Parts: sequence; structure tokens; C-alpha cells
Amino acid sequence: MRSVQVGICGLGTVGAGVFNLLTRNSQPINARANCAINVLQVGARRDNPNCDTADTEIIRDIFDVAKNPQVDIVVELIGGTTVAYDLVMTALDHGKHVVTANKALIAEHGMEIFAVAASKGLVVAYEAAVAGGIPIIKALREGLAANRINWLAGIINGTTNFILSEMDSKGRDFEDVLVEAQQKGYAEADPTFDVEGIDAAHKLVILASLAFGMPLSLEGLFTDGITNLEPQDVAYARELGYVVKHLGIARSSDQGVELRVHPTLVPEKSLIAAVNDVSNAVMIDADAVGTTLFYGPGAGSEPTASAVIADIVDVARTIDAEADARVPALGCDLSLLQPRPIMDIEDIETSFYMRFSALDKPGVLSDITKIMADSSISIEAIIQREHPVGEDYVNVIILTNVTKEKLLDGAVEHIEQLETVRGSIHFIRVEHLDQ
Amino acid sequence: MRSVQVGICGLGTVGAGVFNLLTRNSQPINARANCAINVLQVGARRDNPNCDTADTEIIRDIFDVAKNPQVDIVVELIGGTTVAYDLVMTALDHGKHVVTANKALIAEHGMEIFAVAASKGLVVAYEAAVAGGIPIIKALREGLAANRINWLAGIINGTTNFILSEMDSKGRDFEDVLVEAQQKGYAEADPTFDVEGIDAAHKLVILASLAFGMPLSLEGLFTDGITNLEPQDVAYARELGYVVKHLGIARSSDQGVELRVHPTLVPEKSLIAAVNDVSNAVMIDADAVGTTLFYGPGAGSEPTASAVIADIVDVARTIDAEADARVPALGCDLSLLQPRPIMDIEDIETSFYMRFSALDKPGVLSDITKIMADSSISIEAIIQREHPVGEDYVNVIILTNVTKEKLLDGAVEHIEQLETVRGSIHFIRVEHLDQ
Repeated sequence: MRSVQVGICGLGTVGAGVFNLLTRNSQPINARANCAINVLQVGARRDNPNCDTADTEIIRDIFDVAKNPQVDIVVELIGGTTVAYDLVMTALDHGKHVVTANKALIAEHGMEIFAVAASKGLVVAYEAAVAGGIPIIKALREGLAANRINWLAGIINGTTNFILSEMDSKGRDFEDVLVEAQQKGYAEADPTFDVEGIDAAHKLVILASLAFGMPLSLEGLFTDGITNLEPQDVAYARELGYVVKHLGIARSSDQGVELRVHPTLVPEKSLIAAVNDVSNAVMIDADAVGTTLFYGPGAGSEPTASAVIADIVDVARTIDAEADARVPALGCDLSLLQPRPIMDIEDIETSFYMRFSALDKPGVLSDITKIMADSSISIEAIIQREHPVGEDYVNVIILTNVTKEKLLDGAVEHIEQLETVRGSIHFIRVEHLDQ
Repeated sequence: MRSVQVGICGLGTVGAGVFNLLTRNSQPINARANCAINVLQVGARRDNPNCDTADTEIIRDIFDVAKNPQVDIVVELIGGTTVAYDLVMTALDHGKHVVTANKALIAEHGMEIFAVAASKGLVVAYEAAVAGGIPIIKALREGLAANRINWLAGIINGTTNFILSEMDSKGRDFEDVLVEAQQKGYAEADPTFDVEGIDAAHKLVILASLAFGMPLSLEGLFTDGITNLEPQDVAYARELGYVVKHLGIARSSDQGVELRVHPTLVPEKSLIAAVNDVSNAVMIDADAVGTTLFYGPGAGSEPTASAVIADIVDVARTIDAEADARVPALGCDLSLLQPRPIMDIEDIETSFYMRFSALDKPGVLSDITKIMADSSISIEAIIQREHPVGEDYVNVIILTNVTKEKLLDGAVEHIEQLETVRGSIHFIRVEHLDQ
């Protein structure tokens, strides 16, 4: 049996998972790869107590792995976009195929990296970069190859989904759940990347590029996090038959491509509303197949390792093949990718959930609904909540029909100027994700 | 650009879908295949008014397509296991790759067909044979290649799922919904294959072979249909927090492999419980990735065509590659497949839902629970329903904990012998599909 030599760079949670899984399941993995996959070398600044590397050589300089003449595939698991970038470029320079789980690197430098790889007939595989163990890159790039994708919407960050699930099921505060998520290892000490939607944005860019055949670019992408969400909004959403999820949404239309990450009300009967805790799911709507959904663990040692090794198996199987026979990184030759205009958030049409505090006296609601009507926004539902004892203000919740965001912005500005309305208006976009 | 010549055999619903979709989306499809995919010839006994084949030659003898020296890929869409078998064998004999949507053919003759194909370095691809447009074969065979699969459970027949969804949401009778399904084209004039679970059994065999690395075989598979399900059982299930789904289940354990198709109570909070109408979904639990779920349309012209063309693209891309570089039909070399003992249904452990009619007088329930206890079956819940006016009998519904089916059978026999129990006991298996 042929053998393929793998060098793993980075021995953190995912690196250890890859090593352990390759060891434990070597029999079925080698059978599927049609060769013996051997970890020749591990590059890591320190050992990992969760990983007994046995006889495998561990070296401290990861660049030595990337340059090792005996290594066929370099697995980049160090994260970030600086050293990781240099490492991947060094590996390609030395004729190695690359497997990576690094969404930031692919989203920000993918075009350059894939161009270098293509020029050398090498593969850069990145299944683990999006939605952890769910084989979503393969599904989109190969499984749905016959389709034009209309839109996709994904829960692609486990941390935010865990926080929202807890806020929904237990009425807890954002801050409170975040602390628990940090204790459980679901959220980083600095949770900005997750809770502000930056991590989801990286993943969305990758999915959108595959879906719409356009170059990777973060430009024009709209991002909003979950830090301002209040438990009362999650509760009101439920009352209206919706669940709040943090979605990455990409949609193609004649006006261009929508690329946006933000909290979203989705109908509680939709399949994606039932995706809880740290799970991920990507819903894809395409012209031929219709609506599909792919669900699974979005992070964690072995789920991510599962995706990394699927890539290693793909590369190992085709390692001696002509580059033409392999699936290109973004589904087609890079020269065939077409940039598309990214729509301004102001021009995007969705429904909206609005919440604000208004004086509880006759005529107030009529002023508000008049402003909405003047802005050509029709209202689907209004809830007005009894005020607590001693309070003159009530919570007003409005669900609108589909409207352009700039119209909504105009109406919000007018309503906020009313003397009978206190503070600012909270609004959340609503998607029906019709299946 | 290279071009690849396709011959389509069969121009029914799926054949027309394949032709139309290849025409409509030729630009992205050719980009992804890295070659021009051209339908050279269509073999069909008659034209299809839903398919304008324009300049493409239509011939009446499909075997001429399989023998045409200019055809590279033969697409078998005629169905059945007789002529289709001869057609596929003829195509392989003439050095053609084959793409098929034929689950019965693959389940029954797959081992022979794949062996012939492998001996000639040809591909037989069959993504469309299971779960329509969902790329489940690719997910299981490639996406989850690093895993040992513990179990999988699928809604893999759209007709039965439509019927059960209607029975659940509207309390309708099986027979009543079946007539509607036939009118809508969801069910055949002779619905036996669907409602008795034979179609699902074919698909389950294929999934199980891929999941557990064992040869395709229908032997030992347990099949039960949905024809005896009553609306009251569906309603009682809801009352207990469950939904009735017709599942294909394959599970690997030290005792062997479970292969079974039957109505199943699943917790209403599980994702698969929310899969309604003609949709399909396959849930897979594996050692590394954990639980994943793949959802989408399980049938229909373009969803099935989507899967057929994904296969054509895969074949087209690797048409000049060494056979080694391609993914083997069952995920690994046929010589590495290991037969596994298929467990008798009597030896399988699940929970059970039971319904029967008992005399409404003191001591009856105590007799019944004593029989259950003597059979070492513990009870999770009992519902006893008020009898209608003038009736002496009440409906008793019991939900058991996990037990071996042969113990349940023994208890059922004893309970049916009680003078206070009327008629036979209806039981349905329960799965918790713990995620």
C-alpha cells in the first residue's frame, strides 16, 4: 500500500483531535484513502497532555514541517492570519498540499493562497473552516454542483448559538450566559470574534464564494453581533411565533449579492429554529434541489478533526492525479469567478421586529402607525404590554411586512422624535426562509 | 475545453429533469466539471412533452445508447431491476461510466455491478438513489470518512412521510391521505413499494453498506410499513411528546448490525420530528463528529436531477484520471468490505408504545403491569382513556423503557390472553435518537 506523509502544525484542541483520530480510526481511514496515512511529524511550541504522540517526532519549529522534503501534506492548525499565512505559503513553496481549519486565513487571503496552489498543481483544502464537522464545503461545491444557489442562511457560530439558546429557553441575560460559555470553553476569554459576528462573517464569505462563484472578499459585508440583545426581545419573539438566531445570510438577486451577519427572527416552525446549543446548521435554497439543510457540531476537537481528516483523505486519494481531476478550491477555475456587487444593508428588504417604550395614552399608537404608513411600511402585528405599576410607559412591539431597510430607518428616526416615545428603538431583522 | 458525451436512458420525470437542468445550468455545471458536458443521445421509448430535446438525437432502443462508441457516460433512469440491469451491464461492457438513480438495482445487484465496473476501471455513481437531492452518499462516503458510524436513522421515503405528516397534523386516516398522495403524484397507483417500506429498505441497505463497510445485501433486514397505523396512535404519540415517523434505522454494535424499517415514535423535540411532507432527512451518529443531519427533498424531477448531475460532474472531472484517484463506489476497495451479522428483530432493544382495549374495572391494570414486571419490562408511562358512553372497555396506552423485543413479544402474548383484554395489542417501536 502506498503511504502518504502528513505533517501536523499546531497541537492544540484540533491538532490533538486530528492526531488522536488518525491513530484510533487508522483502519477505516486508510481503507477510504486507499493508502496508509502516516503522521510523520508534528510541529508545536509545546506538547499537549491530551495527545500521546508516541513515536511521532515533535519539533518546535513549524516551518521545519512545512519544508520537510518527506512531508506530502501540511496540516495548518495554528490559527490567525500572520504566522499561519507564512506557514501555508512556505508549505506551497515547498510543493506540499495544505489542509487547514483556518476560516480567517481563507476569507482574508484565500484568493492569493489558492492562486499560488493552482499554479503549482497543489490542493489547499479547508472543509473544517466552516461549520466544523458538517461537510458543508463538499455539499455546496460538489453535492449541489448542478444548481444555481438562490440563498443560504447559516447558524455558523456555536458560541452565539449557545448563548441565544440559553437566553431563549431560560430567559437568561446575555452577559450571564457568556460567563458560563467561557467557563465551559465554548467562548474565548476575549469573545469579540464570536459575539460580534466576525467569525461568522469569515465563514459566510467562504460559503458565498462557493455558492455564487465569486472571489472571496469581506468587502461590503454587514455584521452585527448579539451583545445588545435583551431577554425580553427573545421572549417577545417567541410570543410572535419566532426564535432569535444569529444568522449568516447570503442571497443572490438581480441587484447583487446580500452578505450579512446579524440576529434574526426565524419562524419557530422552521427547521433551523430547532438548532440549539453549540450546534451549527446551514440552510441552502437552490434552483434545482430546492431547500436543503445540513446540521451538526460546529466546533470541538473531534468534530473539527473529522473535517480535517476528510480533506486529508481527499488529498491522499488524488495525490498522484492530474490537478484537473481534483475539485478546485472554489468549485471552478479561479479565472471563472465573477465579482458581484455587494448590496448596501440600506437597500436590503426584510421584515422587521421593533421594540420601543411609548407613553400609555390615547393617540400615541395612531401617531406611530401613521409614520409607518407614511413610510409605506405595512404592519403585520402589534403587541402593547401593560405597564408596571407606577410606570406611564408601555412596551410596544411591532412586526412589519417586508420593506426596504432605508424606509425602516426613516420611520425609526421619525418615531424616535415623537415626544411620546422614550429612548431608542430596538429592531431585529426577520427572515421567513421559505422552504 | 474538453467535452464529455452523456447518453441519457429514460426520459420520464427524472430523465426530463436531467436534460432540462443540464441545458439551463450548463454554464455553472461546465465550470464545475471543468469540461463541456454534452448530451449526445437520449434513449427513450417515447418523447416527453415536458422536455424539449431540441437537436439532441432521441433513439428508441436504449441499448444503442449503451453501445454508442462516442458516449462516455450512460445515465440509467429507466428504473426496475431487469432491463436496467442489462443496460448497466451492457454500458460497462462497452467501457462506459454509469450514473444511476436506481436504488433497487444498487441494493439488489450493486455488488456484482461494482465488481464489474472496478475490474474495468469504471465508475458507477448513484447519489440520486438515496434521499433524492440530498448529497447523502457523498457526505457519508467522503465527508465523514474519518469516522466510525454508530447508527443512522432516516426518513428516506417521501410518500410515507407525507402520509404520516397529514395524519399527524390533521388527524386523517391512512387510506384517505393515500388517495390524495396518489392524486398529487406523490404515490404510485400501486403504492406497495412505498407504504410497505420496500423502497426505504433498498435505500437503507445502501446507507448501511457505506456506513459500516459491509457488502450490500437485503438479507436479514426487517421491514414494516405504515398501512396499519391508526390516527389515534399518531394522536396518542403526540400526547406523550412523540411524533410517528417511518424510519430506516441501521445501528452497529458488538452483537452485529441492526437493519430495520418501521414506524417509529421519535421525541417531538428532535430535529427529525420536524421533517414534514415529502421531505427526507438522514441523521447520522458517528464516533468523531457526533450527530449530523442532512435534510432536503427526497424525490421529484429536479431534486433528483440535481443528484444525478452532481455524479456526472464527478465522473466528468475524473474521467481521465487513474481509477485509484476516484472515490470507490462503496467508499473503499470491494475486497475490504466485511460482511456483518444482521441482528434478528427479536434481539433488538428499543422502547415500545403499546395500545390495547381493556375492561374498565378494578384490578385489570394491576394484572397487566404484573405481566410487564414478570417480563422484566419497566413502564415509563400509562395513559388510560375514559370509555365512550355505553362502552365497558377503555384504551390503555403504555410506554415502556428500553427492552428486548422478544421480552415484549412474550408480554404481549400474555396480556392478549387476559379475559379482560379485547382484541390484539398494537405496538410501535420508540427511538430517542440521542444527539
